[in-house]
Amino acid sequence: MKTISTAKSHGGVQGVYSHASEACACDMTFAVFVPPQAQNGPCPVVWYLSGLTCTHQNVMDKGEYRRLAAELGLIVVCPDTSPRGESIPDEKDNWQFGCGAGFYLDATQAPFSANYRMYSYITEELPALIAKEFPADMTRQAIFGHSMGGHGALTIALKNPERFRSCSAFAPITRPMVAGWSKPAFEKYLGSDEATWRAYDAVALIEDGRRFSEFLVDQGSADGFLEDGLRPWLLEEVCRSADIPLELNMREGYDHSYFFISTFMDDHLRWHAERLAR
Amino acid sequence: MKTISTAKSHGGVQGVYSHASEACACDMTFAVFVPPQAQNGPCPVVWYLSGLTCTHQNVMDKGEYRRLAAELGLIVVCPDTSPRGESIPDEKDNWQFGCGAGFYLDATQAPFSANYRMYSYITEELPALIAKEFPADMTRQAIFGHSMGGHGALTIALKNPERFRSCSAFAPITRPMVAGWSKPAFEKYLGSDEATWRAYDAVALIEDGRRFSEFLVDQGSADGFLEDGLRPWLLEEVCRSADIPLELNMREGYDHSYFFISTFMDDHLRWHAERLAR
Repeated sequence: MKTISTAKSHGGVQGVYSHASEACACDMTFAVFVPPQAQNGPCPVVWYLSGLTCTHQNVMDKGEYRRLAAELGLIVVCPDTSPRGESIPDEKDNWQFGCGAGFYLDATQAPFSANYRMYSYITEELPALIAKEFPADMTRQAIFGHSMGGHGALTIALKNPERFRSCSAFAPITRPMVAGWSKPAFEKYLGSDEATWRAYDAVALIEDGRRFSEFLVDQGSADGFLEDGLRPWLLEEVCRSADIPLELNMREGYDHSYFFISTFMDDHLRWHAERLAR
Repeated sequence: MKTISTAKSHGGVQGVYSHASEACACDMTFAVFVPPQAQNGPCPVVWYLSGLTCTHQNVMDKGEYRRLAAELGLIVVCPDTSPRGESIPDEKDNWQFGCGAGFYLDATQAPFSANYRMYSYITEELPALIAKEFPADMTRQAIFGHSMGGHGALTIALKNPERFRSCSAFAPITRPMVAGWSKPAFEKYLGSDEATWRAYDAVALIEDGRRFSEFLVDQGSADGFLEDGLRPWLLEEVCRSADIPLELNMREGYDHSYFFISTFMDDHLRWHAERLAR
């Protein structure tokens, strides 16, 4: 692991690191905030997965998580959203596929299957690195994210309920296998057999029997992607039928941006901290 | 005035606006956060002046001021740091002069004197626009800033003590007329007669008899510009001899970045709010 930068912030350290990823077959960059409490022992880990077009940096710059994470003693890990580099297959003019759009799945179709293995990266390779290099209590983990990263958080929690004590999302894509901005990516990454897509779709996973303790979701009512891309009511419906408690907060007038995320960041961090302390 | 964007944030509105500036003879962009309390009447105005290379956007993205400004009922105005545009004289490869480096002064030397009039812009033209277009209580104003913008805040407060109830700074340039990264700019903007530079130098202004009620300054001890560029002890010395109360907090391990600024943003906003409420 290589340290790209560190800066003291809110009594802790905000760092940016890179490493040669085996899962993605390229160098990967990520950000970690370590709170001041880590000087006295391992701290719980909160994973934040970002949305389309983002790197580790967007939430690091604009998410406003450090003040409260420092108070609550939370390590916050912010991975990148895809493999990157000149050798990585990409569609340069398409922000909904390729670099910046890994959708937290393991691609099975060439040429993408060689690098686009973000599910393995986020659930296996990066956790092992975090456990090794940071003062992290890996028995206490939580996961959340935004938009495509909200989809990532929901699906990863549903498939690994024993690992995460809590899961929340800001404006998540709830049903990516049918939404216009994600369906073409699923087809290119996973092939034309839609049955294989269900392993990366929160609604389908619940339909197919996966369960999680409870979810918290915040969604802005003025989000331009609400009707076609996000549709939290689909998650609400399937959670109701599966008896999964869902706190869905519709936030009047908020859009899809970090101005929305940062507004409700404190609520989500407190929600995770309460469950991590149980 | 043209609205470039608005987004709901922390119950208020973060907007970005532009207008044709007479002072700078070009279009100027600025950011304004209006807190929810403005629905019930005019709110006090806090001016944040940014540092070298910044636009209105850096502090808007990374300053983390909205949460507490919304709680305290403060309008926060974030201007740009210089005139900009293809017609504006600039030194493209010099980050310490020209675009992004207006130093909050009125240039007297051609060709810069036609556009680089940030002192007039910040003290006359933009306040008039804010008073006209926003629910602002202009009888209650405060000013702060970072680095070059800390210099701007200190000098503008010293020259307009009747207008500002409070003034603070993060890592301000205290003595720009002798610091290596500002002296060449002062010479190009103001000419070779150093006597004219004293009107834009906080230490010189106090030596020459200007006064302000009190200052709050935070400075990181790991700031790479501390020894050569910033030197808060020069401000400390002249404030002591002039009987101006100065709270100078040296912050162990903090650098010059927004990771530092955002850490102490709450302290500064509370400090201003207390004085604006008197």
